[in-house]
Amino acid sequence: MLYFIGLGLGDAKDITVKGLEVIKGCSRVYLEAYTSILTVGKEALEEYYGRELLLADRDMVEQEADEILKGADVSDVAFLVVGDPFGATTHSDLVLRAVNAGIQYRVIHNASILNAVGCCGLQLYSFGETVSIVFWTDNWKPESFYDKIKGNRDMGMHTLCLLGAGRKIYEPPRFMTVAQAAEQLLEIVQNPITEETVCVGLARVGADDQAIQAGSLREMASCDLGGPLHSMIITGHLHPLEVDMLRLFSGPESLKGLKMTGSSTYIS
Amino acid sequence: MLYFIGLGLGDAKDITVKGLEVIKGCSRVYLEAYTSILTVGKEALEEYYGRELLLADRDMVEQEADEILKGADVSDVAFLVVGDPFGATTHSDLVLRAVNAGIQYRVIHNASILNAVGCCGLQLYSFGETVSIVFWTDNWKPESFYDKIKGNRDMGMHTLCLLGAGRKIYEPPRFMTVAQAAEQLLEIVQNPITEETVCVGLARVGADDQAIQAGSLREMASCDLGGPLHSMIITGHLHPLEVDMLRLFSGPESLKGLKMTGSSTYIS
Repeated sequence: MLYFIGLGLGDAKDITVKGLEVIKGCSRVYLEAYTSILTVGKEALEEYYGRELLLADRDMVEQEADEILKGADVSDVAFLVVGDPFGATTHSDLVLRAVNAGIQYRVIHNASILNAVGCCGLQLYSFGETVSIVFWTDNWKPESFYDKIKGNRDMGMHTLCLLGAGRKIYEPPRFMTVAQAAEQLLEIVQNPITEETVCVGLARVGADDQAIQAGSLREMASCDLGGPLHSMIITGHLHPLEVDMLRLFSGPESLKGLKMTGSSTYIS
Repeated sequence: MLYFIGLGLGDAKDITVKGLEVIKGCSRVYLEAYTSILTVGKEALEEYYGRELLLADRDMVEQEADEILKGADVSDVAFLVVGDPFGATTHSDLVLRAVNAGIQYRVIHNASILNAVGCCGLQLYSFGETVSIVFWTDNWKPESFYDKIKGNRDMGMHTLCLLGAGRKIYEPPRFMTVAQAAEQLLEIVQNPITEETVCVGLARVGADDQAIQAGSLREMASCDLGGPLHSMIITGHLHPLEVDMLRLFSGPESLKGLKMTGSSTYIS
C-alpha cells in the first residue's frame, strides 16, 4: 500500500494520530521536499516520528517514481506531504503510476493552506480560484494572475494568493513576503482593485507564531510578518461578520473606512 | 485559553497529535454537533479521547456562549469541530465573543471537505465558490445555487456542492444523496450545463470506506454511494491529468466521450 500522508501546517505534532501510526509501520518513508516547508526541519520530523525520512525532490518524484513505488505492492510505503497531499500540489502523477503498477494507495488528509486560511474569518465558501504570484524579473513580469483576481472580485469572491513558491517549485532561500507581493500588485492594479482594497496578509498559518494582518493593499506593501511561508488574500464582497473578524487583525487606523451597507459590503 | 480543534473527516484517529494532547489537558471539552458528523459517534470519540464530551448544539453556541467560555480565561476549554474549525461553518461568532471577554483563543486545524475533495484528482486551485444544495419542498425550490454553479463554470471553474446539510443546520436522519442532488439539478439545468456534464460524487471522504464516482450528471442521478455524508462536484475546464484521475473513478462506459483538445478540455 502506498500512503499519501498530509503533515498539516505547523510542526511535527500536526500530523494526525492515524498518519503517525501508519508511518511507524511503513518499510520506507519519503518526505516530499519541493512544495512547502513546516516551521521545523527534516531532522525534527525524523526524531519525532522515530523514522528515517528519504527526501523526494521534484526530480525524484517525476523521474524515479519506480524507486518510490518499489515493493509497495507487498509492504507499506509512506509519502509525506506538508499540508494535505492534494492541496497546493496534487500528486496525481504518482497516484496514476501506482494504480498502473497494481499498487493500492490511500490518502490520509490534513489541513492545507487552502482551508486553514479560514482562520482569518473570511468564509471559505466565498473564495474563487486560487492564484500564485511569482517573483518578477527585469524581463519576465507575468500578470495573468491579476485577471483571475479581478474575475473573482467581479463575482464578489475573495482570492487566495500563494506567494513565491509557485505551484510546483519551492526555492527555500527565496520565499516571497506579503510586502513584496503587495508591491508587485500595486504596479498593475486598476479599477475595481485599488491601493485601498482590503487585503489580508498571513504568515506561518497553523504554527505557534502565526501572524495575520488585515488592511489596505497599500498597507500590505509595508507590513512585516516575519519568516516564511506567507500568503495574501484580496477580498471581494465582505459580510459584516467577516469585517468584524478582520478588525481583530488590523490596527485602529486600518479598515476604518469600512462601511456597512445592508447585509454585505464591498470595499475598494 | 479557548481551543478550536478540528477533528478531520474519518474517525477518532483523524485528530492531530497536537489536538489530542490539548483535549487531554482541558477542563471542559465541547463537541459541536450541528454541522457534520464523523463516521463514528460521540461515544467512540469519548472512549478514544478518554474525556467526556459536552454536546454543543446550534442553540447552545448562539444562546449560551457564556457557558462555553466560562473559566476559559483561567483554564483551557476545547471546542471540537468535525473537519476544520473554519471549514464549512465558521465559528467567528464564538471567536468574537471570546476576544470581547478577554479570552485568548487558538485554532488547531485539520482537513475539511473543502480541501479533502482534492482526492478525486481535480485541482483545488480550480474550484470556484462552494454552494449548498438543500432539499426542495412542494412550495420551496430555491435555485440560487444554480447561478453560482453556472458562474463558476463560465470561468472554467469546478463547483463543490455540499448536500443537504446546508450551511448551518444538520438534520441527522435526512442527509441528501448524490443521486437526490443530481435529480434536483436535472430539473433546472440549462446550457452550458446539461445532463452530460461531467460530475463527481463523493461519499464519506477520508473514511476507510469512502466512495468516489465520476460520470455524467445523468449517471449521478442513479448512483448509490451508500451512507452519509455525500457531496458532488460539477466540473468546469478539465486538464488532461484531471481526466486521467477521474477515469480511476468511473466505469468503462462512463466519460468515454471525453476528448482532449490541446492542453485542456471542456466537457458538457
